[in-house]
Amino acid sequence: PKEFEEIASRLAASYTDSSDDETSPRDKQQKNSKGSSDFCIKNIKQADFGRREIEIAEQEMPALMALRKRAQGEKPLAGAKVVGCTHITAQTAVLMETLSALGAQCRWAACNIYSTQNEVAAALAEGGFSVFAWKGESEDDFWWCIDRCVNVEGWQPNMILDDGGDLTHWIYKKYPNMFKKIKGIVEESVTGVHRLYQLSKAGKLCVPAMNVNDSVTKQKFDNLYCCRESILDGLKRTTDVMFGGKQVVVCGYGEVGKGCCAALKAMGSIVYVTEIDPICALQACMDGFRLVKLSEVIRQVDIVITCTGNKNVVVREYLDRMKNGCIVCNMGHSNTEIDVASLRTPELTWERVRSQVDHVIWPDGKRIVLLAEVRHPLILSSVTTLTLLSPQALALIELYNAPEGRYKQDVYLLPKKMDEYVASLHLPTFDAHLTELTEEQAKYLGLNKNGPFKPNYYR
Amino acid sequence: PKEFEEIASRLAASYTDSSDDETSPRDKQQKNSKGSSDFCIKNIKQADFGRREIEIAEQEMPALMALRKRAQGEKPLAGAKVVGCTHITAQTAVLMETLSALGAQCRWAACNIYSTQNEVAAALAEGGFSVFAWKGESEDDFWWCIDRCVNVEGWQPNMILDDGGDLTHWIYKKYPNMFKKIKGIVEESVTGVHRLYQLSKAGKLCVPAMNVNDSVTKQKFDNLYCCRESILDGLKRTTDVMFGGKQVVVCGYGEVGKGCCAALKAMGSIVYVTEIDPICALQACMDGFRLVKLSEVIRQVDIVITCTGNKNVVVREYLDRMKNGCIVCNMGHSNTEIDVASLRTPELTWERVRSQVDHVIWPDGKRIVLLAEVRHPLILSSVTTLTLLSPQALALIELYNAPEGRYKQDVYLLPKKMDEYVASLHLPTFDAHLTELTEEQAKYLGLNKNGPFKPNYYR
Amino acid sequence: PKEFEEIASRLAASYTDSSDDETSPRDKQQKNSKGSSDFCIKNIKQADFGRREIEIAEQEMPALMALRKRAQGEKPLAGAKVVGCTHITAQTAVLMETLSALGAQCRWAACNIYSTQNEVAAALAEGGFSVFAWKGESEDDFWWCIDRCVNVEGWQPNMILDDGGDLTHWIYKKYPNMFKKIKGIVEESVTGVHRLYQLSKAGKLCVPAMNVNDSVTKQKFDNLYCCRESILDGLKRTTDVMFGGKQVVVCGYGEVGKGCCAALKAMGSIVYVTEIDPICALQACMDGFRLVKLSEVIRQVDIVITCTGNKNVVVREYLDRMKNGCIVCNMGHSNTEIDVASLRTPELTWERVRSQVDHVIWPDGKRIVLLAEVRHPLILSSVTTLTLLSPQALALIELYNAPEGRYKQDVYLLPKKMDEYVASLHLPTFDAHLTELTEEQAKYLGLNKNGPFKPNYYR
Amino acid sequence: PKEFEEIASRLAASYTDSSDDETSPRDKQQKNSKGSSDFCIKNIKQADFGRREIEIAEQEMPALMALRKRAQGEKPLAGAKVVGCTHITAQTAVLMETLSALGAQCRWAACNIYSTQNEVAAALAEGGFSVFAWKGESEDDFWWCIDRCVNVEGWQPNMILDDGGDLTHWIYKKYPNMFKKIKGIVEESVTGVHRLYQLSKAGKLCVPAMNVNDSVTKQKFDNLYCCRESILDGLKRTTDVMFGGKQVVVCGYGEVGKGCCAALKAMGSIVYVTEIDPICALQACMDGFRLVKLSEVIRQVDIVITCTGNKNVVVREYLDRMKNGCIVCNMGHSNTEIDVASLRTPELTWERVRSQVDHVIWPDGKRIVLLAEVRHPLILSSVTTLTLLSPQALALIELYNAPEGRYKQDVYLLPKKMDEYVASLHLPTFDAHLTELTEEQAKYLGLNKNGPFKPNYYR
Repeated sequence: PKEFEEIASRLAASYTDSSDDETSPRDKQQKNSKGSSDFCIKNIKQADFGRREIEIAEQEMPALMALRKRAQGEKPLAGAKVVGCTHITAQTAVLMETLSALGAQCRWAACNIYSTQNEVAAALAEGGFSVFAWKGESEDDFWWCIDRCVNVEGWQPNMILDDGGDLTHWIYKKYPNMFKKIKGIVEESVTGVHRLYQLSKAGKLCVPAMNVNDSVTKQKFDNLYCCRESILDGLKRTTDVMFGGKQVVVCGYGEVGKGCCAALKAMGSIVYVTEIDPICALQACMDGFRLVKLSEVIRQVDIVITCTGNKNVVVREYLDRMKNGCIVCNMGHSNTEIDVASLRTPELTWERVRSQVDHVIWPDGKRIVLLAEVRHPLILSSVTTLTLLSPQALALIELYNAPEGRYKQDVYLLPKKMDEYVASLHLPTFDAHLTELTEEQAKYLGLNKNGPFKPNYYR
Repeated sequence: PKEFEEIASRLAASYTDSSDDETSPRDKQQKNSKGSSDFCIKNIKQADFGRREIEIAEQEMPALMALRKRAQGEKPLAGAKVVGCTHITAQTAVLMETLSALGAQCRWAACNIYSTQNEVAAALAEGGFSVFAWKGESEDDFWWCIDRCVNVEGWQPNMILDDGGDLTHWIYKKYPNMFKKIKGIVEESVTGVHRLYQLSKAGKLCVPAMNVNDSVTKQKFDNLYCCRESILDGLKRTTDVMFGGKQVVVCGYGEVGKGCCAALKAMGSIVYVTEIDPICALQACMDGFRLVKLSEVIRQVDIVITCTGNKNVVVREYLDRMKNGCIVCNMGHSNTEIDVASLRTPELTWERVRSQVDHVIWPDGKRIVLLAEVRHPLILSSVTTLTLLSPQALALIELYNAPEGRYKQDVYLLPKKMDEYVASLHLPTFDAHLTELTEEQAKYLGLNKNGPFKPNYYR
Repeated sequence: PKEFEEIASRLAASYTDSSDDETSPRDKQQKNSKGSSDFCIKNIKQADFGRREIEIAEQEMPALMALRKRAQGEKPLAGAKVVGCTHITAQTAVLMETLSALGAQCRWAACNIYSTQNEVAAALAEGGFSVFAWKGESEDDFWWCIDRCVNVEGWQPNMILDDGGDLTHWIYKKYPNMFKKIKGIVEESVTGVHRLYQLSKAGKLCVPAMNVNDSVTKQKFDNLYCCRESILDGLKRTTDVMFGGKQVVVCGYGEVGKGCCAALKAMGSIVYVTEIDPICALQACMDGFRLVKLSEVIRQVDIVITCTGNKNVVVREYLDRMKNGCIVCNMGHSNTEIDVASLRTPELTWERVRSQVDHVIWPDGKRIVLLAEVRHPLILSSVTTLTLLSPQALALIELYNAPEGRYKQDVYLLPKKMDEYVASLHLPTFDAHLTELTEEQAKYLGLNKNGPFKPNYYR
Repeated sequence: PKEFEEIASRLAASYTDSSDDETSPRDKQQKNSKGSSDFCIKNIKQADFGRREIEIAEQEMPALMALRKRAQGEKPLAGAKVVGCTHITAQTAVLMETLSALGAQCRWAACNIYSTQNEVAAALAEGGFSVFAWKGESEDDFWWCIDRCVNVEGWQPNMILDDGGDLTHWIYKKYPNMFKKIKGIVEESVTGVHRLYQLSKAGKLCVPAMNVNDSVTKQKFDNLYCCRESILDGLKRTTDVMFGGKQVVVCGYGEVGKGCCAALKAMGSIVYVTEIDPICALQACMDGFRLVKLSEVIRQVDIVITCTGNKNVVVREYLDRMKNGCIVCNMGHSNTEIDVASLRTPELTWERVRSQVDHVIWPDGKRIVLLAEVRHPLILSSVTTLTLLSPQALALIELYNAPEGRYKQDVYLLPKKMDEYVASLHLPTFDAHLTELTEEQAKYLGLNKNGPFKPNYYR
């Protein structure tokens, strides 16, 4: 039946790297129903499916929807020209359409060559957004898409929203003059933030930047709570592994590691942790995880998960010592944690068993299950990023509207009060009832009744 | 590329209800590479994919593999002619091939019209098994397949392995004389076991039957631990819901309910429980769940999960009162718990959003997300059934080899010692080291050093 | 002030083995305010404190209070003469006064030389009960007290309520003729039940016995849930240890072990388990505990807890290998699990640091903290035994009122329906609302609307 | 026997407010075995018991012991004259003796009129420390003791270690000139820190102060992890309540509240949370707790726990609506959270049932169990304060040795690196193995191989 065909095509589109049509999107003539061609995506015909995904996502993103509603009159982003480079998912689409509703114009590229939901990109293009992204871009495609976002006649961005720093880097390298008109950068990832601090330290940061990654909502909700759910989902979908009784080593006990460990412990896994920072190490101990060096447990574990943000945490030597069937995956942001390159040697056989899942086979028949070929194998687009996107929107509003002089050429954290505001937007969805301070209590605590309730250093 | 095409086709095959080919398998000429046509499946060309799935499954099924190895010389099922009716998954395939290795001949049908993994059925057919099953059978197909298993010239079953009692029911109804040669029935499901006890009570059970459902390993490992993992996976794959902070009501606090509750609590859901049995009710209390009547919380919950084995637990009245976006799913065995029929009224619109996921839309726009159209929406074939299948194999061996008179025309539980044996087969996979009793300790406890270690009534 | 003195004396009475008065209770003249002398306790003056403890306990024992209320008219134990031998705590007092309210006469001794709450015994004596028990009895005192309960002119018991089997044993040995009038034995402990099954097997059991230990409510609520709370409390009160990050080995993964492991895991301990039974072993694995042999971890653990019911689980060899400061305690019923006798050698120094806590000091200065000198070091009288006592009362009623022939000279489990009744009596205290089956549902399930809801083999 | 007497006297000393001797310590002639009289405590004869408690505490305080060992040669506090005002417990004694070993002279008073362990004070006095403290001081005694610490001829403090700010307040009020010689204040409590920030804001802070309360180790380890264990212990010891199935409301979801909630949830309680801060509120939601206003649940809960640091959180109106037997306790630092004064009305009867436990009885017989008469009813001295005391020692060393100008008249957080150092001192006790960065990794991350590993804002 017709309905089944559609579902099948949608699924094929979302879950596989293939398609019936092998022509590169760059070589296709593309046009949406209003006649615009200022985009480049996989297949505009998938727009309806994408629209449905976006509508479903809206239901899980109360904060942005509330923001959209409240700011309907004000248009705080009127005049803003935002160039963005993020994962292109249904959730991002909700963000982009919110920015648009707030008055902004947007052009967008993907920050990752694998993570684009083609049908969502189609819905955005159909809706009039200039989107340049598809699942399975080549390295060359990747930069081409970014360039198409910024290098356009008669339009120049005045705000940057970046995830990973690649867009910022490209503008620095190719169009440094653009920064004259740019009011600020909002950056979400650890890596991108790190790059910004380095620019700042080197005196090369020429506009204010907002570090959204270290907002409380991002750290706690996106990293801790989302990873708690997505580690299970990601591993189960790709490998069907059963967690009970399995031995797992988690490298890194930051928020991401904490979320992974909590979830796996709850499912009955036996979890070991490695750490370099004594404070996080002690937290792991107090939370009931044995703190080990990777070499101590590498022979016995069933699963290795990296979330350090570091490089070469799992090197060939460890991969050689793992047992047959061991699953190795990266939950961190960058793809540097597992030394995948070291596995590209002649004596090892690679076998692709599913999308994003490789078996690497040793001469003696030992197989390692590798989930490391993409940057974010497990941060699945479909895991609703509860609060990630709202701080980005608020940071854009703040930077765009800040009076001259409030922000200098430096990297800033999201003001505490905005963090609290983001959180408060989510409470109704949980039917959660906040207590209000009485006048007397506010006075006793020396606080404003409406917050901020904690000092800036509080986490 | 070739590889991607294959993956895409495999994925399309596994995840969708559709296919490029709409011809009914019953109307196709089918033949495997050895020339046999004694099977009926979707597409024999998928055999290679299915074989890989089976090989992966073998790695997670140490008990059957150990059984296969140990019994290689003995062939304890030599001469056994087993007719089976179960979910047809990679795991079942491992069971069937184990039975075959132990000497049995097997003919098999699916116990569920949706759950067949077509590629696994293909691999089995290619391997010489007479399999009659495909994903998306009609009701008529369902009984036709069962009939093809039993109604075959020159072959008559002497053992039945059933899941749900449909196969047993069919033979009772159509070929009652077959029971003269049948040595026993092994039944796995609550429903099937219930039917057998009713037959027994009515004096109509004419062969011994083994109730595998109430084996300790089944109850604890399959129900409790598997459901703990599969509830999260099942909900996440179909709805992408985030669990943290969500209000969930779980109907029924048996092993399945306990597993669901534990998993959801660990993910940060707020869980309510309904129960009819005061003992299970008190357990829910002590485990930290509020015990409520469904009517008390139905307006506020985000997710409703049924696992009672009862009928009409969620009726139209409750569905009318749920809030917008509420997810309703059945984790129990039978599809009777949610009164789905009551939703087939003109004022409600149904919309199929994904395979096995329907939105039911009220006139005021309220949507309910229904995961109830199939019998087992959430017991995903890919969740490895840790120990389910080994007791079935052992029960077959026991019944087939039991001396005359050990078992009468009644329903039996798996002997304790076999349960312990099944468990012991799984320990090596966890690198678990069992302690052995000293002679002195065994004497003190009045036990045999090799078990059984607990009385039969112990759970 | 007066008030403080009272508190101090009460505390001294409850928490220490000492008293201002070293005269043995057996040598004292004792009389309650009504002039009765048919008891032997520490100090009748503590009756008021004891009464308050009993009143507090009543609030936590809704089932017995409900039983007392409901049966007020009926007096189902009218004519019953119950001799009991249990821990003498506030909770037991509530049981005894309930039995009395139901019509029974009671005489009582302690089943443990340390566990008697002297002030409770005083309250009971003051209330007219013939109680023979005090904290710190000698072995000789212990049997003397039991004898005083049964060997009394003009009164002969017709019901036995035992905990551990010592009372039953004494009557078998000294007054076998008494069994002619005895209608039944209710026994609560593993050990006592074991003895009864042995008697039964040997054909020497001459009255029916009810095994309350294996009732569902006992197994689940008393063992699992009570131990979950009491292990933390017991260790903390005696050693002030912090659990987070500590390595603990729990020997035995029955209900007691499961409770201990769950509690310690939740507090952040790293828990290892030893087991002899492959089923329990596999449960430990699936619950996330490494299954080891004691010898593998004995050098590294901070705490060793035994709950096997076995003997010589922790032998001298292991004690020698433990690290400095290791805590060793027995949570099982019998005091045989740790080979304490092996530590009574000249090279080891014993130091009593608190009541029930010894340091054993090796020549090199290593200290082991031993909580093993008493039978139940950690099952603190003050942990409310939620449901233990109600099944005992119901079992007494059942055996006392059973029609001739219902019970033979054998050991019986509590009927399922009674177990369910006990559970239902506790639900109101949790404000828990049980769902009732509709007629249609009951019929579908083949159940009586009022239960029993599960087969007898269900746990 | 002798041994029992000792135990009894020790127990009486630790657990009660009473003693055989009602003479005020201020009226006694006191002298230690070396002839010194420069102290005022309850009973010097308890010194031996106190010494044993201190020795036991040393085993649980590896960081201070390591500090003591490492700094043996250096004497970084040579010349320091520290006046301290903290809880006087075995743990504090270990701190004081460490400061002494590092070269400091110490004079000490108690920061709480109830929390002094008399036997520990005795051991300190016997060891030569000028201690002025006993359990059960009057308000007048309290200030007298503080004054005796600072107002002494020929000795003037140059460092202040305060817990709550009372000592600092006293010196400000009575001896402001002393600040000329004082190098700094180390303050541990929320309240004290709050006062310091107010002084600073008002321009009245005349020396540098170190806010130890907001060190990572304090926040995470002392608040979160210690409270996780002490809430259970504190409630169990005072009320013997069983947690399973109980409904509890926790007011405040800061670190203390998080610890309480985690522990209670793990024990099977049903936990509600109230919050004023939307970020903490959202965390409570994501952790699986219903966020309510107190008024919504006050009628149904069994236990109310306050940990807000606020005042009048539980007012008379709520106390009136609680159900019979409800337990009310304060886990926060200050005793302002429960409006206890409002219960001092004629129609309510107070009954002291145990030390620190009052029953307040309404005219209709309803009883509330109040654990609120002391400032810290539940932060039991015996719960080992894992890391609290080490940061205090390090902060003293830092302030005392800081070069002129490093610290101004302001409030400072402990430098990140010191926090990490404190944590690293504790790792060996957990047999925890820290991973070291390779040169290449340190370079990649832009970190020094030895830390600090996180930015200062990281928590």
